Amino acid sequence: MAESWVIMVTAQTPTNIAVIKYWGKRDEKLILPVNDSISVTLDPVHLCTTTTVAVSPSFAQDRMWLNGKEISLSGGRYQNCLREIRARACDVEDKERGIKISKKDWEKLHVHIASYNNFPTAAGLASSAAGFACLVFALAKLMNAKEDNSELSAIARQGSGSACRSLFGGFVKWKMGKVEDGSDSLAVQVVDEKHWDDLVIIIAVVSSRQKETSSTTGMRETVETSLLLQHRAKEIVPKRIVQMEESIKNRNFASFAHLTCADSNQFHAVCMDTCPPIFYMNDTSHRIISCVEKWNRSVGTPQVAYTFDAGPNAVLIAHNRKAAAQLLQKLLFYFPPNSDTELNSYVLGDKSILKDAGIEDLKDVEALPPPPEIKDAPRYKGDVSYFICTRPGRGPVLLSDESQALLSPETGLPK
Amino acid sequence: MAESWVIMVTAQTPTNIAVIKYWGKRDEKLILPVNDSISVTLDPVHLCTTTTVAVSPSFAQDRMWLNGKEISLSGGRYQNCLREIRARACDVEDKERGIKISKKDWEKLHVHIASYNNFPTAAGLASSAAGFACLVFALAKLMNAKEDNSELSAIARQGSGSACRSLFGGFVKWKMGKVEDGSDSLAVQVVDEKHWDDLVIIIAVVSSRQKETSSTTGMRETVETSLLLQHRAKEIVPKRIVQMEESIKNRNFASFAHLTCADSNQFHAVCMDTCPPIFYMNDTSHRIISCVEKWNRSVGTPQVAYTFDAGPNAVLIAHNRKAAAQLLQKLLFYFPPNSDTELNSYVLGDKSILKDAGIEDLKDVEALPPPPEIKDAPRYKGDVSYFICTRPGRGPVLLSDESQALLSPETGLPK
Repeated sequence: MAESWVIMVTAQTPTNIAVIKYWGKRDEKLILPVNDSISVTLDPVHLCTTTTVAVSPSFAQDRMWLNGKEISLSGGRYQNCLREIRARACDVEDKERGIKISKKDWEKLHVHIASYNNFPTAAGLASSAAGFACLVFALAKLMNAKEDNSELSAIARQGSGSACRSLFGGFVKWKMGKVEDGSDSLAVQVVDEKHWDDLVIIIAVVSSRQKETSSTTGMRETVETSLLLQHRAKEIVPKRIVQMEESIKNRNFASFAHLTCADSNQFHAVCMDTCPPIFYMNDTSHRIISCVEKWNRSVGTPQVAYTFDAGPNAVLIAHNRKAAAQLLQKLLFYFPPNSDTELNSYVLGDKSILKDAGIEDLKDVEALPPPPEIKDAPRYKGDVSYFICTRPGRGPVLLSDESQALLSPETGLPK
Repeated sequence: MAESWVIMVTAQTPTNIAVIKYWGKRDEKLILPVNDSISVTLDPVHLCTTTTVAVSPSFAQDRMWLNGKEISLSGGRYQNCLREIRARACDVEDKERGIKISKKDWEKLHVHIASYNNFPTAAGLASSAAGFACLVFALAKLMNAKEDNSELSAIARQGSGSACRSLFGGFVKWKMGKVEDGSDSLAVQVVDEKHWDDLVIIIAVVSSRQKETSSTTGMRETVETSLLLQHRAKEIVPKRIVQMEESIKNRNFASFAHLTCADSNQFHAVCMDTCPPIFYMNDTSHRIISCVEKWNRSVGTPQVAYTFDAGPNAVLIAHNRKAAAQLLQKLLFYFPPNSDTELNSYVLGDKSILKDAGIEDLKDVEALPPPPEIKDAPRYKGDVSYFICTRPGRGPVLLSDESQALLSPETGLPK
């Protein structure tokens, strides 16, 4: 075996947002949840992780760089993923270059990992979900593991629970599973991203001064102290999962929106029922909910669903482009950018929604009329950091174009 | 019967704050709750309603003035109270003045009612509880009804649910009752106000731009839409009621504080689980909770309990004067008054707590050190409107001094 070669794989994996929430583990170590959850995968064009994994006999140890900065791989979550994929590694052969790695070699070979999020990591946009899914997916391809994406999802789950749902596009169910070793706690696709392609998703990244409780700590405290969580997990969620799958399959937006909003609110309710209570939403989050609720009620049928994860950011799912354009008008009315912010850096992602809303510059934002469904509508300048317009998207893909790799094919170090 | 006489009674009734919350009616008309609740009565010296009721053959109709302004008595809640007390009226004789009213006369005689709150009515400080309790208590005395305060509480309950708990001092339990006519849904005293007289109560009246959902509407929507409420009412609250009574009887502050905070948070959790969700607490409320939780945790044993009703105001119950003085220092650090506000109008009620805290003027507030349990503690100037320092207090009393009457003894009209 020559000492100089490097073999690399680059993959891109989407993030996802739960519409029936995962909150609470029944097994902390294996990351097994107390209930099923369902998510929508977000278009990786706007929100994704790209990960390059490389192997070379010249690597002295496993190393990882996240957004260009080296980080430690010693944490249990990384170790779980590396161990599980290594255990499934198979023979790899590059005939052209005359390289052959046998199943057994993987035990001794080390990997380099470089990962990059095309969105702010700290903004509370489920970067760990996309990150662990991408790591597992890319390693599996590098090591020629034969497992399908559901089987890989059970490994990604041991990195970050919600990562398992990022192994598929469209709508995805994480089945909680029953067996003790967690092997049946994995993700399956409900429908692919083409099934319901009218949907438009607008994310409001909310400014926050508060340090938030990590979701790991938060859900542990909820499991330990909330008297409502078990009732939710055992009695309420199982019914909602069935209803949500039906709604998605039938593209029943009214039912989908009702379930999505109710389940987001109930997740935040069990957080509040925790001792000490956990508050992820702030006044801005509440105002966004109020804006959506009042509009939905004034129309008589839901136009938009909202859901909030473990932070103040709103994820708003509009029935179609028309509803999305109207929503964006309302959001920009309530939450105009600070005067030193350009529209171009305030509304990110799919800018065609902005065009549909008839907004070309900040003057158009200033001139927006107050939503008729609210009297004396105030404006909360600066309370939202920025918006991202996106849609449901595809699952993980391999990037064969070597120019997209994050590691150098010669050195195996970050480019 | 001469046409010119007026007979009057003036009573003073406290407000109360629930430590195990009432939220949800099983009967809207009779105001029967879905669970028992327990409250602490607040000292009427700082927060009370004074009500004068008068009867005269010269009155052409029932009339009422609230804080000097005439209001309509046509609402069902007032009519309930008037009808129920009239049905229990007995003979009244004023031998000195030669006036005799027979049981039957009350059917034809009209009353004038004047009511005054010694605190801002709109501030979300349970003014309706004190108001209906005072109305029923004063009318019962005027009409010589023989019912005891528990029996009267079942009438006040039909004006405003939580009013039934204002018929007693100290700690009070509202038993939800079983029978259909609601006659066993009434208040009983747990302990009187002398039983646990170390407690000090500080109320933070929080500034709010938000229009709040009325508690009547809010609890109806929670009953109709929350999937968590019934579990709370049937499985959780009954146990908490037993534990809370024990804690109060044994003056076990750690247990009392734990239950009080947990139940306040669970009440707000079921509000959030309502469709559309109800948010009564705002960012300032959350910050007050965080301030108390961090302090309690840093000491290792609870110093202060918090509870929030259907609004953003915090009611903070301190273990003793020392804890109250420390709490006030912390609160004034985080929430100093606006620069145009005088300390005297910012900390109301029992100002001796302010003295214990070593604070004499605004310079002392400015100079307060950041609480050591929080790093980089920011200050939120203007987010609290004012504080009221008070304590557990007595139940309703008659005021025999005619100078305190709100109606003129000659005309029966407001003075």
